Amino acid sequence: MNCLPMFEPIRSDLGTVEERMLAAVGEAEEPLSSALAAILSSGGKRLRPALVILSARLFQWDPEPVTNLAAAVEMLHTATLIHDDTIDEATMRRGHKTLNATWTRSATILAGDYLFARAAALAANTSSTHVALIFAQTLLTICQGELRQMLSLFDWRGSREGYYQRIYAKTASLFASACEGGATLAHAPEDQARALKDCGRCLGMAFQIVDDILDFAGDEQRLGKPVGSDLRQGIATLPVYYYLQNGGQEALVEAALDRCAGEQDTRDRAIGELVAAVEASGAIASCRQEAQSFVRHAVETLAPLPDSPYRRALCELAAFVVSRDV
Amino acid sequence: MNCLPMFEPIRSDLGTVEERMLAAVGEAEEPLSSALAAILSSGGKRLRPALVILSARLFQWDPEPVTNLAAAVEMLHTATLIHDDTIDEATMRRGHKTLNATWTRSATILAGDYLFARAAALAANTSSTHVALIFAQTLLTICQGELRQMLSLFDWRGSREGYYQRIYAKTASLFASACEGGATLAHAPEDQARALKDCGRCLGMAFQIVDDILDFAGDEQRLGKPVGSDLRQGIATLPVYYYLQNGGQEALVEAALDRCAGEQDTRDRAIGELVAAVEASGAIASCRQEAQSFVRHAVETLAPLPDSPYRRALCELAAFVVSRDV
Repeated sequence: MNCLPMFEPIRSDLGTVEERMLAAVGEAEEPLSSALAAILSSGGKRLRPALVILSARLFQWDPEPVTNLAAAVEMLHTATLIHDDTIDEATMRRGHKTLNATWTRSATILAGDYLFARAAALAANTSSTHVALIFAQTLLTICQGELRQMLSLFDWRGSREGYYQRIYAKTASLFASACEGGATLAHAPEDQARALKDCGRCLGMAFQIVDDILDFAGDEQRLGKPVGSDLRQGIATLPVYYYLQNGGQEALVEAALDRCAGEQDTRDRAIGELVAAVEASGAIASCRQEAQSFVRHAVETLAPLPDSPYRRALCELAAFVVSRDV
Repeated sequence: MNCLPMFEPIRSDLGTVEERMLAAVGEAEEPLSSALAAILSSGGKRLRPALVILSARLFQWDPEPVTNLAAAVEMLHTATLIHDDTIDEATMRRGHKTLNATWTRSATILAGDYLFARAAALAANTSSTHVALIFAQTLLTICQGELRQMLSLFDWRGSREGYYQRIYAKTASLFASACEGGATLAHAPEDQARALKDCGRCLGMAFQIVDDILDFAGDEQRLGKPVGSDLRQGIATLPVYYYLQNGGQEALVEAALDRCAGEQDTRDRAIGELVAAVEASGAIASCRQEAQSFVRHAVETLAPLPDSPYRRALCELAAFVVSRDV
């Protein structure tokens, strides 16, 4: 298994998580079993399971429940991707065909449900109702956030606060739960579990802001998708807010996020113009600063903990989150 | 709240479950909150929460976790109905418009996910990881069963064993978990919790067989849907198996379950003929006998328990399950 260099101290733990996930979906019947195994094996950086393990490794390591939670968190994440792809009618992800592209939409919904259920069963198998509850509540936050996003599409006049709430729900809540859950299962003192949760939240916020930056300024080849995807879906992200704040043209944003645009071509052209204008403005640098400030805060929460390879790995992960270009 | 007459001894408990469900979805934002409240309030006999409560009332009554589980079980059931309606593109259920009819398909998927998550959170809130695990595994069984059904549509040559597996997954597994979970939370001895699980399973099998009978021999007005709905969806149920076993015409079944039928009219006519032929044969009576035999077994599992209003309610519920016409 390839893993990010800073995950070297937990390479074998991550290998066990991989086996646990494949064993869990291996209990399904065919063709579901193979389809889910293929999706789980098709890449992904395993950031979320790594957060669970690193957070647990900082305290009293208890491999069985921690591995279950790490697998559960990645499977929950994958289940949300499956339902996202169904909703967006996406046919490619991570350079592979989505389940949605080969199965009927109905079977895809059920496959996502099945993966949710498997993840919930693994979370319940940590023998901690507190962790099972954290897990269920994260799923609630994610669903609620997706619905909120769906209901506010094309609405670029909303507050920046709304953007933060959205990315918390979409990404940071699961990062936070991964860290809090790992620490809790490792019997961390309550204040330290809370600090880890905050660390995860900040990493997640930074991660999503960088994702949103890459949608404007990323390398299309490396990302495997065209820039401006969010705008195309009707979603205004932080670069748009900074662009407007720094005196950008409202008319350009309006044209790119015009739900009633007559011609698809017209909107596509407007999106291209807005992407270029945002890049040319200082918006991207402002976003990057903001992501860095979240990451600094994440690292600060770790300061009271004794030095260890695991704490160092978390700090390196924090640096990676803002420097990554894919 | 209207409740079935045999639920009189637990009327106020069921009222608390109702409040718990509405409070749980009340935590969602609008318009999700109102939409889910409307779906939960739109009827349903509350058999599943009643099974949780009656099973718990037989032992040491502990209202808080039992109410949570009862609410969780009904909400899980409702979530599966929402995803079912999305999959079937149904626009009416229980005489009301489905969520699917008024929301986009994507929002409906997410609303179902949200309800799953709320249900899982309530199940985790029983402070019993064993019960949270039973809960997650039931969801697994249900999803797997739905997928299996989806993959075997129009396949009427399958074994009758396949039919039993399907209705176990679809209905009896949740009935079984409701009883087992209720008994477990009430600290029932392990063998008695197992007996209750078996009781629930048999009630669920009987319930689903009667459902499948009503799809051939029910009153369309009372059911609020036309007879032959299962056949129209490509699903062969027990009456078809008995019809064939008792010397029915394969050609009639083949025409009604012909996935490649050229004209919709032709298949509709074939379905009408098959429904009439099944009714005219002894198939329905054979199915009813089978449902009765499941119900007899359910009542037998209760025999070792001391007499109480709750045990009597379960026995009356068993009688209702086979005698109901809606």
